[in-house]
Amino acid sequence: MTEAMRADELRPVRFTQGHLLLLDQRRLPWEERYPSYDDPFEVAGAITSMVVRGAPAIGLAGGFGAALAARRAAALQGLERTRYLERAAEALRGARPTAVNLAWAVDRVLAAAMEGGPEAALAEATRLLEEDIAACKRMGALGAELIPDGATVLTHCNAGALATGGYGTALGVIRAAFESGKRLRVLADETRPYLQGARLTAWELQRDGIPVELITDGMAGHFMQRGEITCAVVGADRIARNGDTANKIGTYTLGVLCREHALPLYVAAPRSTLDLSLESGARIPIEERSSDEVTRIGDLRIAPEGVAARHPAFDVTPARLISAIITEAGVARAPYERSLAALLSI
Amino acid sequence: MTEAMRADELRPVRFTQGHLLLLDQRRLPWEERYPSYDDPFEVAGAITSMVVRGAPAIGLAGGFGAALAARRAAALQGLERTRYLERAAEALRGARPTAVNLAWAVDRVLAAAMEGGPEAALAEATRLLEEDIAACKRMGALGAELIPDGATVLTHCNAGALATGGYGTALGVIRAAFESGKRLRVLADETRPYLQGARLTAWELQRDGIPVELITDGMAGHFMQRGEITCAVVGADRIARNGDTANKIGTYTLGVLCREHALPLYVAAPRSTLDLSLESGARIPIEERSSDEVTRIGDLRIAPEGVAARHPAFDVTPARLISAIITEAGVARAPYERSLAALLSI
Repeated sequence: MTEAMRADELRPVRFTQGHLLLLDQRRLPWEERYPSYDDPFEVAGAITSMVVRGAPAIGLAGGFGAALAARRAAALQGLERTRYLERAAEALRGARPTAVNLAWAVDRVLAAAMEGGPEAALAEATRLLEEDIAACKRMGALGAELIPDGATVLTHCNAGALATGGYGTALGVIRAAFESGKRLRVLADETRPYLQGARLTAWELQRDGIPVELITDGMAGHFMQRGEITCAVVGADRIARNGDTANKIGTYTLGVLCREHALPLYVAAPRSTLDLSLESGARIPIEERSSDEVTRIGDLRIAPEGVAARHPAFDVTPARLISAIITEAGVARAPYERSLAALLSI
Repeated sequence: MTEAMRADELRPVRFTQGHLLLLDQRRLPWEERYPSYDDPFEVAGAITSMVVRGAPAIGLAGGFGAALAARRAAALQGLERTRYLERAAEALRGARPTAVNLAWAVDRVLAAAMEGGPEAALAEATRLLEEDIAACKRMGALGAELIPDGATVLTHCNAGALATGGYGTALGVIRAAFESGKRLRVLADETRPYLQGARLTAWELQRDGIPVELITDGMAGHFMQRGEITCAVVGADRIARNGDTANKIGTYTLGVLCREHALPLYVAAPRSTLDLSLESGARIPIEERSSDEVTRIGDLRIAPEGVAARHPAFDVTPARLISAIITEAGVARAPYERSLAALLSI
């Protein structure tokens, strides 16, 4: 792992001069560093430790990880080669459990590697990256139509350029609405425990000159009650056949609050986030992360020594609380069983 | 201000050897320090800067502050004496705007000072402290009956011994249920931005051996959805005539979540928190604190330089979301207009 040059535009996952570069999001907003990776197992470690995060972005990192595995496997023979590829793919797929894009991307690149070797694998990973950016821009254009002029848009976690190949899903919708000339402002939930809203969303929107104010997760209800919020837009880590959506912990609460205040809640996600094999959100695996991530912020312990903490990293928002799911192929509405299946067949 | 000895039991507001001692809650859970005060204006500063916090506790600190003012005023003559007392009382009353207990306690001690001089003022402040602890124990006994054996009780912020003279309001209810032999466990919202749940509630419950797990504010909905929560108990900073309740920011969201999951939400507060002069919560002043308290945690900046943040310190939970209000004189239920007025006449 070596350090690489600073970037001109926001592309958290890059492949340059034979190396995978990942923007280390654990260090944002304090510094912008792009460590470099050549080993698929190190890429899996970077996904687990959240150097890269956001369902589409970890899918892309996993895809390039599989391409790196194909390159290394090329030096091996027969059964050894297959075993190495399988072990690497398993490590990448298992690096985080909730986002379905990860296994999807790893499997696509692995299939290309089996078929056409390392060059085909790298070409496929690169294609996934380009497709993802294009999908985000398309989602942005479709979703922007749902955001009224003058809106105050609430968002949770970071579903931005940093969570994707670039441009973003939920923040892509906000970005596209802003670029189309609509006046808007964003309220960003800070999103404890990992503070993706404070560290990443605020940073990304500030960089683009989109008006943003930070709030703590417990404030959203208050601002809705005061009539200060127009709608909420969030990303997704996995969407079941019936539209139930796993996303960052706290999203379910937003869904309940939006319903209470008759405000629309929009989910923006590429079709690779759909998992039609699951009939409902009850079957989506929810990652439990270390309680240290709750009881510490950086080096500061914020709770007494020895106090237990819980840390489910995601929750499931039932489809009935979701006004629409914005994908690159169109905007799905209830009943989702039908509308999501239709989008996948486009 | 000098440092005083460590305490044996949890009494955040004490008057010893002529000095007011306040447990510095900004330093918990890292260290237990009791700075000492002799000047009412310094006491007002300690309330504003949250050395002491929690509606009943700031009322008691304000009461002792007024007693200190009466002692200093005794050296002055006639109009000068009255002016000094009035200025000190104004500083104390205005130290924080939302909790109504503060003005109530300052006025009671001031009246005693006018009537009987510094000794009477100190006796009144001491009586308020003793009354508060007794009220908490009575609230605990009444509220404990509402907590079923085996319950998992959610609480928000710190409405414990630290927020009162001792024993606590919401945590007094939990403490009394636990002391009565009921098995229970507490889920404590960490309560951003000030982390009273993580720093204070977890510390206080751990000290008493009451099982507690810490969660982030965005997790409560998820655990309700999973059926892991039995009820929620919170404190209050001001309760209007119709039962609308101002409490720590995030409480309103809990109220909406409890209603969605058909779980009871109990408010525990002494009668000094009732403000029957206000017809509804819409008229309760909500303190706006510095946005730095959102963008920084301790010395760590958690958001990019220059990003704006909002910081309403309280929100208002409408009476319709509150299952019961537990006071030292009885448990009030809807319609609150009638039941709260009846409690005040006991």
